[in-house]
Amino acid sequence: MDTTKLSKMLYGGDYNPEQWDESVWPEDMRMIRLSGMDIATVNVFSWAMLQPDEVTYNFETLDKIMDMLHQNGIFACLATATGAHPAWMARKYPEILRVDFDGRKRKFGGRHNSCPSSEVYRKYSVQLADKIAERYKDHPALLLWHVSNEYGGECYCDNCAAAFRVWLRQKYGTLDKLNEQWNTRFWGHTFYDWEEIVPPNILSEAWHGDRTNFQGISLDYARFNSDGLLDCYKLEYDALKKHTPDVPVTTNLMGTYKPLDYFKWAKHMDIISWDNYPSADTPFSFTAMTHDLMRGLKDGAPFLLMEQTPSQQNWQAYNTLKRPGVMRLWSYQAVAHGADSIMFFQLRRSIGACEKYHGALIEHVGHEHTRVFRECAELGSELSKLGDKILGARAKSKVAIMYDWENRWAIEFSSGPTVALKYVDEVHKYYDALYQLGISVDMVSFESDLSAYDIVIAPVMYMVKPGVADRIEAYTKNGGTFITTFFSGIVNENDLVTVGGYPGELRKVLGIWAEEIDALFPGQTNKIVMKDTLGNLQGEYSCSILCDLIHSEGADVLAVYGEDFYQGMPALTRNRFGQGEAYYVATSPEASFLQGFLGELCEARGIAALPGVQSGVEVTERVKDGRSYLFVMNHNAEAVNVDLKDGGVDLLTDRSVSGVTELAGRGVMIVEA
Amino acid sequence: MDTTKLSKMLYGGDYNPEQWDESVWPEDMRMIRLSGMDIATVNVFSWAMLQPDEVTYNFETLDKIMDMLHQNGIFACLATATGAHPAWMARKYPEILRVDFDGRKRKFGGRHNSCPSSEVYRKYSVQLADKIAERYKDHPALLLWHVSNEYGGECYCDNCAAAFRVWLRQKYGTLDKLNEQWNTRFWGHTFYDWEEIVPPNILSEAWHGDRTNFQGISLDYARFNSDGLLDCYKLEYDALKKHTPDVPVTTNLMGTYKPLDYFKWAKHMDIISWDNYPSADTPFSFTAMTHDLMRGLKDGAPFLLMEQTPSQQNWQAYNTLKRPGVMRLWSYQAVAHGADSIMFFQLRRSIGACEKYHGALIEHVGHEHTRVFRECAELGSELSKLGDKILGARAKSKVAIMYDWENRWAIEFSSGPTVALKYVDEVHKYYDALYQLGISVDMVSFESDLSAYDIVIAPVMYMVKPGVADRIEAYTKNGGTFITTFFSGIVNENDLVTVGGYPGELRKVLGIWAEEIDALFPGQTNKIVMKDTLGNLQGEYSCSILCDLIHSEGADVLAVYGEDFYQGMPALTRNRFGQGEAYYVATSPEASFLQGFLGELCEARGIAALPGVQSGVEVTERVKDGRSYLFVMNHNAEAVNVDLKDGGVDLLTDRSVSGVTELAGRGVMIVEA
Amino acid sequence: MDTTKLSKMLYGGDYNPEQWDESVWPEDMRMIRLSGMDIATVNVFSWAMLQPDEVTYNFETLDKIMDMLHQNGIFACLATATGAHPAWMARKYPEILRVDFDGRKRKFGGRHNSCPSSEVYRKYSVQLADKIAERYKDHPALLLWHVSNEYGGECYCDNCAAAFRVWLRQKYGTLDKLNEQWNTRFWGHTFYDWEEIVPPNILSEAWHGDRTNFQGISLDYARFNSDGLLDCYKLEYDALKKHTPDVPVTTNLMGTYKPLDYFKWAKHMDIISWDNYPSADTPFSFTAMTHDLMRGLKDGAPFLLMEQTPSQQNWQAYNTLKRPGVMRLWSYQAVAHGADSIMFFQLRRSIGACEKYHGALIEHVGHEHTRVFRECAELGSELSKLGDKILGARAKSKVAIMYDWENRWAIEFSSGPTVALKYVDEVHKYYDALYQLGISVDMVSFESDLSAYDIVIAPVMYMVKPGVADRIEAYTKNGGTFITTFFSGIVNENDLVTVGGYPGELRKVLGIWAEEIDALFPGQTNKIVMKDTLGNLQGEYSCSILCDLIHSEGADVLAVYGEDFYQGMPALTRNRFGQGEAYYVATSPEASFLQGFLGELCEARGIAALPGVQSGVEVTERVKDGRSYLFVMNHNAEAVNVDLKDGGVDLLTDRSVSGVTELAGRGVMIVEA
Repeated sequence: MDTTKLSKMLYGGDYNPEQWDESVWPEDMRMIRLSGMDIATVNVFSWAMLQPDEVTYNFETLDKIMDMLHQNGIFACLATATGAHPAWMARKYPEILRVDFDGRKRKFGGRHNSCPSSEVYRKYSVQLADKIAERYKDHPALLLWHVSNEYGGECYCDNCAAAFRVWLRQKYGTLDKLNEQWNTRFWGHTFYDWEEIVPPNILSEAWHGDRTNFQGISLDYARFNSDGLLDCYKLEYDALKKHTPDVPVTTNLMGTYKPLDYFKWAKHMDIISWDNYPSADTPFSFTAMTHDLMRGLKDGAPFLLMEQTPSQQNWQAYNTLKRPGVMRLWSYQAVAHGADSIMFFQLRRSIGACEKYHGALIEHVGHEHTRVFRECAELGSELSKLGDKILGARAKSKVAIMYDWENRWAIEFSSGPTVALKYVDEVHKYYDALYQLGISVDMVSFESDLSAYDIVIAPVMYMVKPGVADRIEAYTKNGGTFITTFFSGIVNENDLVTVGGYPGELRKVLGIWAEEIDALFPGQTNKIVMKDTLGNLQGEYSCSILCDLIHSEGADVLAVYGEDFYQGMPALTRNRFGQGEAYYVATSPEASFLQGFLGELCEARGIAALPGVQSGVEVTERVKDGRSYLFVMNHNAEAVNVDLKDGGVDLLTDRSVSGVTELAGRGVMIVEA
Repeated sequence: MDTTKLSKMLYGGDYNPEQWDESVWPEDMRMIRLSGMDIATVNVFSWAMLQPDEVTYNFETLDKIMDMLHQNGIFACLATATGAHPAWMARKYPEILRVDFDGRKRKFGGRHNSCPSSEVYRKYSVQLADKIAERYKDHPALLLWHVSNEYGGECYCDNCAAAFRVWLRQKYGTLDKLNEQWNTRFWGHTFYDWEEIVPPNILSEAWHGDRTNFQGISLDYARFNSDGLLDCYKLEYDALKKHTPDVPVTTNLMGTYKPLDYFKWAKHMDIISWDNYPSADTPFSFTAMTHDLMRGLKDGAPFLLMEQTPSQQNWQAYNTLKRPGVMRLWSYQAVAHGADSIMFFQLRRSIGACEKYHGALIEHVGHEHTRVFRECAELGSELSKLGDKILGARAKSKVAIMYDWENRWAIEFSSGPTVALKYVDEVHKYYDALYQLGISVDMVSFESDLSAYDIVIAPVMYMVKPGVADRIEAYTKNGGTFITTFFSGIVNENDLVTVGGYPGELRKVLGIWAEEIDALFPGQTNKIVMKDTLGNLQGEYSCSILCDLIHSEGADVLAVYGEDFYQGMPALTRNRFGQGEAYYVATSPEASFLQGFLGELCEARGIAALPGVQSGVEVTERVKDGRSYLFVMNHNAEAVNVDLKDGGVDLLTDRSVSGVTELAGRGVMIVEA
Repeated sequence: MDTTKLSKMLYGGDYNPEQWDESVWPEDMRMIRLSGMDIATVNVFSWAMLQPDEVTYNFETLDKIMDMLHQNGIFACLATATGAHPAWMARKYPEILRVDFDGRKRKFGGRHNSCPSSEVYRKYSVQLADKIAERYKDHPALLLWHVSNEYGGECYCDNCAAAFRVWLRQKYGTLDKLNEQWNTRFWGHTFYDWEEIVPPNILSEAWHGDRTNFQGISLDYARFNSDGLLDCYKLEYDALKKHTPDVPVTTNLMGTYKPLDYFKWAKHMDIISWDNYPSADTPFSFTAMTHDLMRGLKDGAPFLLMEQTPSQQNWQAYNTLKRPGVMRLWSYQAVAHGADSIMFFQLRRSIGACEKYHGALIEHVGHEHTRVFRECAELGSELSKLGDKILGARAKSKVAIMYDWENRWAIEFSSGPTVALKYVDEVHKYYDALYQLGISVDMVSFESDLSAYDIVIAPVMYMVKPGVADRIEAYTKNGGTFITTFFSGIVNENDLVTVGGYPGELRKVLGIWAEEIDALFPGQTNKIVMKDTLGNLQGEYSCSILCDLIHSEGADVLAVYGEDFYQGMPALTRNRFGQGEAYYVATSPEASFLQGFLGELCEARGIAALPGVQSGVEVTERVKDGRSYLFVMNHNAEAVNVDLKDGGVDLLTDRSVSGVTELAGRGVMIVEA
């Protein structure tokens, strides 16, 4: 963004004045300014307003809105309005309506409803983006482009089927290659003509919703679908860039949202932005991990928190209020993990349709004398004071966790060995252990450069893509510590098993062979029994879900199973490889094991915990221009004493703080040092 | 009905002799007479028999049945036979088959299978009603018309879509008005042509089955669907009335059945009738409430119990037998709440298809030596003795509960704040408290005249329709006591929020402002803490589901919350308004609170409990010609002692009873005084 | 089979070399021979390979495979390859794709995907079988034909609808007869033209998935569907027999698989084969019962175990490994119940698609140094030693349990009295009691000759087909002991109730009348109270699900209910009938009652338990040429002492064993005497 325009943390949110009579607008402006906000995301759902029919475009209302924003010192995060197509278009061109996973042609309604392969949709969405960019390219309120809204979902229509075949030709070249990589000799699925291939949904290869008979086609369709939506995004991106090469373009992502490969998307985004909607019972460390994942999409660059709710959501089953202080706390949590903005959905609550019970800066009562408004305005005031201090600051981590969307798809498409294995949960177990220890983590892709890290963890690296094993070997050989787990190294990028013994391409670096994989019933556990102590790690720990039955082929056996017929077989191994070490955690351990294990590894490598970490207290650090900004956040409702060690100046109070310091319930400090 | 024909409580039920060989009929007659029955509902599912093809009508069998009934002194509740269309019609005119909520075109089968918008269905159903009325208008057995059967269900076909657009034009006049009331600027749903509007089902606006993206269209479609089926009913009604202006017409309703707005239907019915099928675990007070709701449909007029099972149902998961005495007890419960008939499904059990394990007067064994037959015959004998004594008698209530179908639809279509909120359950909580106290209740509509009541309760009056708030204010000003609850006064009749502060149009009469609405997780509770005693009401009570965070704007704060960040905020308020009082119950309380609270209000207003009420003992009163008929019903399996106070003569035993009197397990007394 | 070719227990499994490069094949041969195997099921899913387009057939690869097998001394169980049609055929002839229960036309994918009524499918499947038979009829490797694979599923397409009408015409002759037997006067379903009849799926008569409005049509459709698939089988059978009249033909069945009436299928199979895939928590007695049912399909003839997994499955939710020894134990369990083969799916694990995590002789690691391979090779070695000793040996049972697929369909289509009633579970309760007692059981059809049995049990004989009651009466009159239960004797073969009193046609032999049937809620129980002792059977027992309220009409009342309003009514009766006795168990008792009750009956009739039976130890006997082979199998993980009485020679160790003998955990003895 043009920081000459605004050099502070962006503060604002989604604003839909077109839903209201213009007489309401001045009051909106007064209250938005009163709350200290300076940015509004506008035009998200205006397609039907801007283009009332196939040939007419009408920007009158949007002109007024943009001008009003500017006159009130508020910048625009200007959306391209393609998040929901107009009803007239659905009627005239039914091809823009999707066919769902159950094979049903949808009708007009809802939101994520455009077929990404539709030429009509692509033509008109790009045309709209182009016209908007042309019209507002020099508007002084324009700060940022926002393409469409929360891309997502899948389509299985005939147009998609045709596009899928083109995509497959590009990927495989020949049917022989496709047949080989999909292993179509199995169940006699050999294709002799591209036209024989149909999308894998409930009418063809899927069963029980999320499982599939042919992982190969389902995996490729997931890629195709993610790519197809990305193409739609890129077409709009190009249309915008043609007019405004210097205005950054984003689209709002959704954290660990499964269907889109955000690492691939990130390459085409100028800045990452995302919408953070935890439930009241989402673990704090899960939210933290998701922020770090979003930060990792562009190698640690700051991102935008595009949406969160000031208080209540509407689409959960039980929509609790955010307790006093929680909105502020969670806002700073975003900043603590790399956000350079705090933005809300929504600035004024709508009065009709499904989001009218979603929280907003301006509630239905319409005035500022509400708890929610007060909390927003207090935060606004704090952010003004912070100025540009931490804008652009970055985290520095010596530990990385590898994360991959295609790996997740493949694991969760798998028929066997267990439905209990959820990729994100396994990743979160490792993240959470480090979070509780106060160790900063970078979430990186399977393609990331690992050289900056002392420890790299790849939980359930089921799919080993070309070149990945080599890079892991090189990393380890050069002194890195690599950790992976059960059910890793099993398949190639098309879900074909690497024969010759699990963990396949990772076998050499790990120095083990996994002969069998046992699946445990829900509630069933085994034990990890430490052979010797590993630092302070000793004794027995519970484990569950899957147990690899492994043999050492050179690795040291650090722990063994404590029960069942594979009692005594290795459960934790360490392979010295070149200058480094590679660990294999053969099962899914309880939390205390992972905290103990990772704690020892970090300590041995001199990776220190951030000061102040304790139960319910989260600590992160961002650094900029040689200054450190320590975020200390108390998720407990009660005050706690935290030990800040050397400390510094708390930017939120201007107080000098050090040593043992009281931190209020749900309180936050940003200690500059 | 023509009481010169039959001046006693109707006793009988559904009878389908056309399913049997005629040789069986004389035995039917003998046993029906033996059981003391005098009415048979016939011809319910005979369309295929009466009209074997498009041009032929054949009434031969029905003639025989009607004549046989008359010869045996049995009256006919004569159905129009349009409850299920013939297979030939479905084949020839597929338009009569519905499209379901999932968007699937149905085929022939089942029961509720005619599209209400089909011109073919309307033409032939009316033609059949017309022919039947013409043929039997002077038949001496004819007592009552029964249109179709248990109207219900929804259709989403293209014919319905077209009819819906016509209905919308009539309601809104212009698309501008519709767009405004549906708030279609939200998510860019603006309609520019009526033809763009499609029915809201799972292919368009619905999600997770019962929730919707656009409450406006879903609410209107629910109205349209109820109206469409009502139109089908009215067309048949008119055809019957043309021939027999004096024969009463009914159709059998289904209590709290959600899809049909029975208050609207009742205006077009000469007499209300309904089918009572409680489960073995349905609370007795729920059945009582439903009877009172049916009585309330026509302002307290007696209704007909059209169907109940003599013993077993077939379509529940676990179909328990009615224990000895239960059929009699529940029959009198219906009478106690206003029924002037006791009728069964079915007089003889079918031998094939899905209802063959549903109870009947004549079981598969075929003779009268069964427990079920004996109990039926004993009841028949009692009813003969009662004669016309209580026919037409009415309840007299000083307390009313307001109930509304559209309000229910709107609440349950809502996205947020909680899926736990079920309208009927909340209404039942208030009804049950009064039931346990022995206070008679009238169930009234949002449009009813309230002036006769000392207390009016409107649980969760979420939707305030035009004029309703004014009438509530006038009622309260004139000395009435009005009670409403959390999540009331929120929207107008099209689910648009009334801005300016909840509870919107009810805010003035209640003297409060509800700033926020907190949703509690399942199992989570807060506390209602009484500030002072209200009569005997004091101490703390549990509450759940939703908690409004309210501020008094003049109302007395009678109780506050005991926990969480809104501890100390009002949980129960009373606003003195003119001569009356308006109470706001800000959350969903446990039963003991409601019994204490409503008990105090009733006592203060001199509304006395009926004598004899105690745990498991239900008491109601019907009055007629200055005489009182006290129904005392023991739902316990064991005998109890009840205090009848002054007492009178028990019509079922001719004994004089007063003071403490023993009442057998599942026993009933009807005390005339 | 031609036992001159191979006179030992077949040992081998499914083998799909066409999925692999030919360079892998020699290693396959080496390892298969190394494991002691001698048969491979080949060509199961090769249709797309053999027939790449409509006119081309290519047997080159199959020729090589067959020759290779022969050169390595391995016989072929040669499949006809019609288990999955080619993609090109689905594209060119969409008629071969099914319409599912939800009314959705399927696309290419999955496995059971051919419409059984499709003329195209029938033409090409028969043509393929014919060509294969012609080509390999004289191949020296050919031992056995394997038609298609695991026939199953249903189709509801228009071709099936048309074929169903033809099937109905053949069954009923006239629409009058059909209307009568389906009781279509109910709900006005009378059909006037055959074309009006549509398949009963979720679009017509079905509701909640497994229930139906019209049992008659649903039952006939289940028969039609089973018959249609059987026709497909028979057409292939005939094509094979034309070329090889002496080579036995089978298709692999699936135990208690519901949709196919295997008694009807068995008539057209030369030898029964089936696939045994118990879960880790399947009761051992359930697997035993299923083996006995498969043996009963052809009146006790030995069958083939066509598939089991060497270790792990893939399609269960949690795919546990078979613990060491379990594969061997369960293999011998099959033999103990009548199998003459032990075969696996699969010999080499595929590397792609959904079965890649299913166990195999040759795992992904590709060598023989695995636990699974070792166990397979050890078993192979044992089987070689056994030679032809027990080939063709038979069980001898004095107790039979009657089982019927149509009876199951009818019970589970029923609307009422309870969804808790599952036919197979009730049958298993009786089987399990006898299993725990060590009593050998034959599973027989409703049409079987009963004269050889001392005791015949027909749990929940709901449907009494023509002639069955007469045969039961004759059997009992001649001295047999007949036992049936609640909810028996209710309907005829078309689900029409037999009027005049339950249990209908069985009433005379049982000497009772069941007046009512009470359904109990989940968790609710009643008691069976013994009046006098029946041998050692005395005291009280729990019962649940359904309770018939019966009256004796001559039967002795042995036990009564202990609770509820039918306390004191008969719960167990015995009717002396001619030389025999007929028992009625009026409810579903707990296991201890059935063990006590059946134990007494067996003891009184001199039916002795097999030696060695105790908790977790299963014992069966096969006899041949006057020799007895006692299988003693320890399902416990720990060793036990079993009392073998006279004993004999354990064929697996060549040791003489008698009296109290230790048997290892999961150990097996085959004692010849």
